[in-house]
Formats: sequence, C-alpha cells, structure tokens
Amino acid sequence: MIEPHIIPARTGHAVALAAGGRIKVINTHGSQVVDTWALSADDASEYLSMEQTRRMLFKLGPERGDTLYSNRRNEMLVLEDDTAGVPHDTLIAACDEWVYEKYGFPPGHASCQDNFRKALAAVGIVAPATVPNPLNLWMNVPVSDNSRIALAAPLSRPGDHVTFRALMDTVMVFSACPADVLNVNGEDCIPRDVAVALLDEGEGA
Amino acid sequence: MIEPHIIPARTGHAVALAAGGRIKVINTHGSQVVDTWALSADDASEYLSMEQTRRMLFKLGPERGDTLYSNRRNEMLVLEDDTAGVPHDTLIAACDEWVYEKYGFPPGHASCQDNFRKALAAVGIVAPATVPNPLNLWMNVPVSDNSRIALAAPLSRPGDHVTFRALMDTVMVFSACPADVLNVNGEDCIPRDVAVALLDEGEGA
Repeated sequence: MIEPHIIPARTGHAVALAAGGRIKVINTHGSQVVDTWALSADDASEYLSMEQTRRMLFKLGPERGDTLYSNRRNEMLVLEDDTAGVPHDTLIAACDEWVYEKYGFPPGHASCQDNFRKALAAVGIVAPATVPNPLNLWMNVPVSDNSRIALAAPLSRPGDHVTFRALMDTVMVFSACPADVLNVNGEDCIPRDVAVALLDEGEGA
Repeated sequence: MIEPHIIPARTGHAVALAAGGRIKVINTHGSQVVDTWALSADDASEYLSMEQTRRMLFKLGPERGDTLYSNRRNEMLVLEDDTAGVPHDTLIAACDEWVYEKYGFPPGHASCQDNFRKALAAVGIVAPATVPNPLNLWMNVPVSDNSRIALAAPLSRPGDHVTFRALMDTVMVFSACPADVLNVNGEDCIPRDVAVALLDEGEGA
C-alpha cells in the first residue's frame, strides 16, 4: 500500500485509477462526508451516474459489493469493501457556490462543485460543464414513509472506510465536503480532513 | 386556451414558457410516461434539477403544489395542478441509446435523451452536453423499505394531467418516452402520444 494521501478539510483531490486498481477512502475523524465522482479516463463525458446506478441496483444507495454504473450504463466501479453498514447517499446534489450564497455567505466559500473542477484541473482535465451528482460517502439522508428525506449527521465512526475497485480506466475525484452550515459533516459543523490510499494501481483496460 | 399540441408517441417537443406562463401536460391514454425538463431561457446551463428539488422539498418526488428548483437553487416551476395523487419520479435517468443497445436493439431506437436534443435543436437551442435527470411524469417507481426501488406500470388514468407554472423564463422539453421493453409505459409496452396545452403564455421576467 502506498502512503495514504491526506485530503485537507474543504478541499478536493483527483487520482487516476486504472481498471483493476483499488483505492481506499478513510473517514479519519468519522464525521466527514466525501463527495465522490469517477470519469472515464478515455472520455470525460462518461461519468459515474447515480441515476443509472439506482436503476441498475434497484436501490436508493449502494452498499458493500454493489457495482456502480456510468451514464452509458457500463460497469465502472465495485464498492468492494465498506464498513458503513448503511447505504451511501445518491440523492443530494454536491454543494455549490449558490447554496452558500443562499445561506448568506460572501462569495468564495469552498464548495464540492468547485473542488471537483479544481481537482480535475490539477491533473490537466477540463471538468464537464455540468457537475454530475456525486456518490456522497457517509452522507446521512434518512428516508421515511418511502417518500420523505432528511439531512442528518453521519452515523460513521473514526476509521470507517470504503474500497473501490475500478472496472474501467477512470479518474476518481474526492471532495472533503466544506459544508459548515448544517450538521451534514457532524454535529459540530466542522469540516475535517480525510485520506485516500491507493491499494493497487491496476493494470488498465 | 390554445389548441393542445399532440406529441406523437416516441418523440419530443420543446416550448418556451415565460415567467407566469402555465402549461398543461395531458396523459391522453393514461399509461404514458413523459420525461420533462426545463432550461432557463437566458442560460441553458441553468436547468431543472432533480437532485436540488429533492433537497429543497425533502421528498423523493414532487406532488401538487410543490416548487421545483434549478441546479442554481432558484425557484423554476410550480407543479400547480396534478391529478396523479402520487409523486412523480425523480430517481431514474432518461432512456438513451446505450440502454437500447444493452437490450439488443439495433442502433436507431428512439430515446428520451435523443428526443431532448432534437426538440431543443428544433427551437434553435444547443442541448447541454450532459442530459439532466428529467422529472418523469407518471413514471411508477415504487419505493419499499425506505431503500429499494422497482419499475412498474403507471397508475395514471386516461386524461390525467399536470399543470406547470413558470417562475422564470424557461424552455420546457417533453418526451413521450419510447421505452417498449419493460412495462414503464403500460402493461402492453406500447408507447403512446400525449398532449401539451399552453394555458397562459406568461409575461416574462
């Protein structure tokens, strides 16, 4: 295992993961949501799609062992290991400049959508014009009456982790969510760092 | 009311709807799903967003009286009237060329994503590179155990209708879903025509 890379609180990180490669995402402090995307390394217009993944799994959110699909209905990732025990969120958009504006912050508050663009730019990729809906690791969106949703503090604990295995050559993007308004990143509303560790670089498609 | 416009089975239709305008969508035969999008008339990168609408409503799908939001978290439409009595689907992607390929059809099967692009092209608008997740009117996606979903035949009846009121200047796009594989458009798997009627053109923003 290569030394884990720390993703500082409120920032993003992009990493290439070839087919067969595996990457572990570690919720170091336990309460941090990590917005997660994947793009095809060959064509950034193919991306990990929550609306396709729900359709293919017949689930609102993935759990350990589930395959995750692209917007072209191709198998993209496997959620190979997962200590969460509850599904991760697929329903809620990544935070963006507009939500912080609505909450009354001055311009410049970090957001997952900005982190997505900046992390891709750092590896020389122009982000798609529209930011796909991410897989929100550990985001706690309780569903009730099979129709209502809520936002709540994560149920995860320090050291909880997931491992993705790539089924195609991908670029993965992670954002340690900067939300500090509601309790989505913990009851104290303090965004924290997380870590990613490349377990296996993969051999490529 | 202006004469309703018939949207033939398997095709799409785009129509400008200024702020204050109202449009009625009629499920003529009762079993037809209508994939529905809205774009800002001023900037096609602002679009009706299911992931924002769920977040703002704290619901999996909208019902009569609900406001629908854009990806910039602006109020875009009101679902002013709705005979359905059950929420419409926001969870499932529009059908596309790839799903029909997976089902073994030769290239050229109509799809909602193609209908979206073609309908916009017909009114001189270049579609966003990524097709947003539509509001799937009358699509029956039962949720169970607050976690699982299924695809089922619509519960709607002939003449069921919804009315949208625009809260900004929009271009709306409707696709009479061409799916003929599963029972999403009725137990007989036959896509059918629907109608839209402009009730009020609006005065604009």
